[in-house]
Parts: sequence; C-alpha cells; structure tokens
Amino acid sequence: MMNQKETDYWLNILYKICDKTQEAVKNARDDPHINEIIKIGADGTPTHKIDDIAEKAAISVLESSNESLILISEEIGEIKIGNDDPKIVIILDPLDGTTNALKKIPCYGISIAVAKIEDKYNVEDLTLNDINIGFVKNFPTGDIYHAIKGNGSFKNGKSMNLSKIKKLEEATVGAYIYRAKLEQIDELCKIVRRMRILGSIAVELCYVADGTYDSFIDGRNIVRILDIAAAQLIITETGGIVTDKSSCKLKSNLKLSEKTSIVASANEHVHDEIVKLIN
Amino acid sequence: MMNQKETDYWLNILYKICDKTQEAVKNARDDPHINEIIKIGADGTPTHKIDDIAEKAAISVLESSNESLILISEEIGEIKIGNDDPKIVIILDPLDGTTNALKKIPCYGISIAVAKIEDKYNVEDLTLNDINIGFVKNFPTGDIYHAIKGNGSFKNGKSMNLSKIKKLEEATVGAYIYRAKLEQIDELCKIVRRMRILGSIAVELCYVADGTYDSFIDGRNIVRILDIAAAQLIITETGGIVTDKSSCKLKSNLKLSEKTSIVASANEHVHDEIVKLIN
Repeated sequence: MMNQKETDYWLNILYKICDKTQEAVKNARDDPHINEIIKIGADGTPTHKIDDIAEKAAISVLESSNESLILISEEIGEIKIGNDDPKIVIILDPLDGTTNALKKIPCYGISIAVAKIEDKYNVEDLTLNDINIGFVKNFPTGDIYHAIKGNGSFKNGKSMNLSKIKKLEEATVGAYIYRAKLEQIDELCKIVRRMRILGSIAVELCYVADGTYDSFIDGRNIVRILDIAAAQLIITETGGIVTDKSSCKLKSNLKLSEKTSIVASANEHVHDEIVKLIN
Repeated sequence: MMNQKETDYWLNILYKICDKTQEAVKNARDDPHINEIIKIGADGTPTHKIDDIAEKAAISVLESSNESLILISEEIGEIKIGNDDPKIVIILDPLDGTTNALKKIPCYGISIAVAKIEDKYNVEDLTLNDINIGFVKNFPTGDIYHAIKGNGSFKNGKSMNLSKIKKLEEATVGAYIYRAKLEQIDELCKIVRRMRILGSIAVELCYVADGTYDSFIDGRNIVRILDIAAAQLIITETGGIVTDKSSCKLKSNLKLSEKTSIVASANEHVHDEIVKLIN
C-alpha cells in the first residue's frame, strides 16, 4: 500500500501530466497534419500524430520528476525512466478516444494508473489488483475522476453516487458490440433500456462510477490494460463491480500486451443479469 | 419555395427559439425535480419536466411572433398558433437527447424544421420533402447547423464537407441497434470500422453532414419526424443521401404519429453497402 504522503506526491505529478498533455492536445488542433498516422505504436495499433504529441507531453513531465519508474504507454511501449531502481509502475493512455479528439466528438481524455513496486523482484507479477492510484480526465467536459486504493474515489474532488437501477430494462449501458460475436449480445441488445457507444472506454467506465451509466461492457477480449487500469480502481473504490465477462476478477498483468474483456456495473443485480445474458 | 426574405425572416425566429430554449434548459439544471416524468406526451413517450420547460420556452417565442402557424411538437402535439390561416408548419423537438441532457453526456440539442403552406387545402399532404428550412443546435458544443432548401447548408455559418470514405471497413457509423432485430445488423456490426451511439438522432444526423460520421442508421421503424425533419434537409443540402432502410426516399407526412426508418450517408458507396447489408 501507499501511505498518504506517497499518494499525495504522485497525485500531484498526475495532475501535472494531465495539464501538460491536455494543453499539448489543445495546441495540436491547428496542425494540418494532426490526422496523420505516423507509425504503428508499441501496442500494435496505428499511432496518430496527436497520440504521439500527447505521449511526449506526458513523458516530459515524468522525465523532469527525477523519479525512477517503469512507464507502460501506448506508443512508446514499456520503458524505464530514471537511473535508480524503479519505485512505481505508471500505466498511461495519454489520449483515450483519439478518433473522438480528431472528430471533435466531446468524449476523450487521459488515463493514468500508478502501482507501487513493493519488492523489486516482483515487478513481473504485478496485476491490475495492485493499482494504488487511478486518474482519468474527460478533456472536453473538464471532469476529473480519481481514486486512491482503500481511500475512496472522487469526481472533481467530491464523492460519487452509483446508479441504484437494478433492472436491465431501465438501464443505460455502454456496450462495445461492433466486431463482436453478435450472438453473445443479442439478448442484451433486446432488453436494455438504452445503449451508448461514446468512443472512450476510460471515460465511459468513469460514467459507471458517477451514475451516468448503470453498466459498461466490452466482451471482445481486446481491451488493453491502458484503457482500464485507472478506471477499474475508480469504479471499485466507489463501490461498483468490475470483472471480466465470465464474472472473474480482472487479473491482467501490467503488460502492454495484456488483453481482457470487461463488465463493470453499479450493482450486483445489473452485473449478474448482464453476465448471464452474454454467457 | 420560400423566397430569401421569407427564409431570412423565419431563420431569425428560429435563432430566437433556439436561444430561449437553450437558456431555459440551462436554467432548469438546478431544479431538484428536473429528472421527474410529469406526464405522457402527445407523441406517446414520457415527458420529463425538462422537456416541458424546453417546449414552453420555444412556444413562447412563437406566440409572441404574431404569426399564424401549425406547430407539431413532442409534448403538446399538433396545435395552431395565431388567428389567421396558418402560413407555415413548424416541426419542433425542443430537446432531442433528453437523457443525455439529464445525465450531462454532451450531445443534445434542439431541432426545428419549417415547411411553407403553399395552399391551405394541401396541409394534410405535406411531407418531409416540403421542408424549406432545417435548424439544429448541439447545445453542449454550441454548433449550429442549418439548411435552406435549394440554397445549401451551413455549420456555424460556414459550408460543410462530407466524408469521402467509401468503404464500410473504414467508416464511422452512428447506429441505433438496441431493441432492434439483431439479424438485420449482424453483418453491419461485423464490418464497420467503428460504431457510435451518442443518444441524439438530430445531432448525429448533422454529424453525417459535417463529416464526423460516414453514415447514420436507425432501422427500427420507430424514428419520429420530429427527430429528423430538420437534419434530413441539412444532409441532402450538403450533398449527402437520406432514405429509409429500403433505400426509398423518405415520404412521411408532417404528422406527430408518423414513424420511419432512416439511413443517411455521406456518399452512395457507403449508403448502398449499408442498405445491402441490412436487407
């Protein structure tokens, strides 16, 4: 666990990363080449110029922090920053919802998670369960979500309330169902009150925490830990439930290559009903 | 057809309706009862208090205009305003995306369409094809889309460019597929590059006009003319294509009870491919 001094220290750095990255994304808007794909990132997906700009801004803050750490990020992959033994792992998606950012659909932002390295020999064994701090900012709305393991979660500094809706017939569900095996979501689609696909998993998971969504599901086994490392802690610290689509606790290692499915819900009633429907 | 003096006159009134309605929606935010359903509207769907507030604000502008007209709106139904023979029909959705407005998902706004009554005996025969002016504002982003039949379309006063993407494998498609017959959209879901369900049909149709979306589809035969009357003109005046799911021109009468399906696309390539897949 992190003590309060440590969490305050790192949270302060996360705010700096967030501010610098958001500023870089904003300034990049007028770049005529901002839509261009410049390479294939370390995670195997195309890197838009705007992703590269966002990541470089974030890394510049970490490099000037004089801390030694392992960074796992979308474009650069897994790198060590600093000269000493790393104290923490940072899992960063500098711009979740790149397409929305380029298309100006107002749902995109940054996701940063921090896991303390308790023992330098166990870095390989760290999982999503070891995340100590989760931080997500929805850039267009300005909403900042953060959670400290064991110490709660906050939206713009205030505690959040999960939805109390228990029936899927009344539920608002974020559901990534395109290019999925349709037979798995047929029943879900038929029953759910309303569905959303906004285009930023990190932000939409935070919508489960703040009561906007009753549930979020991506059953395609293609979800990267980058997208969920921060938000899964924000949900569980609010009292919500996060599992994979088989209702098992997420146990992905903190590796860029790790992929999972995810079902996140405000309460057990909705969660159990969704898991039953998609299995 | 309307002459320029007439379109300028009515467009000016639409801006006033829009401003007054947006202000009313904004001011209503702090009302602790704003989430309440207060009745079943004339269109048969539940009326939230915020819908009622928005509609009353819009009607107040029309009533003070000293014009005689027929208003078709979500909650109040079809009413006559003014004492003389009506000169126009106004089709109004004062708040499209009510759930988003309540949940603060930044995609909701007003949709207003104007059809001139050329001959007072043919009011019953007017269809979507007779819309002379279409006006949509996305309240959270501030973007205003409008079109004048025969005279083009505009986003914030500037002309728009449709997407040039021709392959569904590269396309971004807004697709209302929940509580739909899934077998119809199975193939679409498998092929499309990315899908969105943002929660405001009027705004998302305008996303076809401005190049954000390549296509928008709601194949459920439950789309009301309120949602599409303005935006369908905005798309066709930009050079895009709007049909029902059988690729037939929309021919709904200007009646609250009319329901249709809709497929709207930036170009024929994407349009034809989608229509083929869902039939």
